[in-house]
Amino acid sequence: MADARDITDRFLPRFDAAGLVSAIVIDADTHALLMVAHMNADAIRLTQNTGQAHFWSRSRGALWRKGETSGNGLEVIEMRVDCDQDALLLIVRPAGPACHTGRRSCFYRRVECDGSLAFLEDDAQA
Amino acid sequence: MADARDITDRFLPRFDAAGLVSAIVIDADTHALLMVAHMNADAIRLTQNTGQAHFWSRSRGALWRKGETSGNGLEVIEMRVDCDQDALLLIVRPAGPACHTGRRSCFYRRVECDGSLAFLEDDAQA
Repeated sequence: MADARDITDRFLPRFDAAGLVSAIVIDADTHALLMVAHMNADAIRLTQNTGQAHFWSRSRGALWRKGETSGNGLEVIEMRVDCDQDALLLIVRPAGPACHTGRRSCFYRRVECDGSLAFLEDDAQA
Repeated sequence: MADARDITDRFLPRFDAAGLVSAIVIDADTHALLMVAHMNADAIRLTQNTGQAHFWSRSRGALWRKGETSGNGLEVIEMRVDCDQDALLLIVRPAGPACHTGRRSCFYRRVECDGSLAFLEDDAQA
């Protein structure tokens, strides 16, 4: 099942019906998963042009630069795309905590089998 | 802006209009980002019950167990959820290459500023 998006050397993001791709953000130094967000074509272009991560907020229906209010921006060191080009990886240097809760990563809770969540120590975050 | 999903110790996934959350899959040993997929409530339940990663295929409109045709299943060591509970992190031991192209990771190309993609050596993958 050859798919042109798998093998091309051209960046051809496959946006969903809302015009978005997923953006996975990891720390360039620790490789920790920091956050997941969404990008539209404008967010990708602004990120490439400024070197600072921009996203599309689905809840607010607006483009935003991460850190524009918190100060905790994300300097983008490298951007990668997955095989079918519907997800991006941003490898970043964060200026501060990536999560709006003040934590380093948004993934601070482990899902247990009984439907509860266990809060992780910061050092245990992926 | 307190949000119950940020602080609760209950697993209350926030599914989108299509009934899906994003699932970020990393290797338990190398911490490499392997793939990104989507899960609905059934995929989450089956993953928890079997210990093998199940996803919802948006293109095929079907539930699938990763590896059911390729043999390259993903043993789930741990599941985490993000602050607003619309994204999951699966920490896995893969039985083989995670990408359908035969590569370890789906993120094998770097996006360059000129709109081209550079293919990465396997060891350079995040």
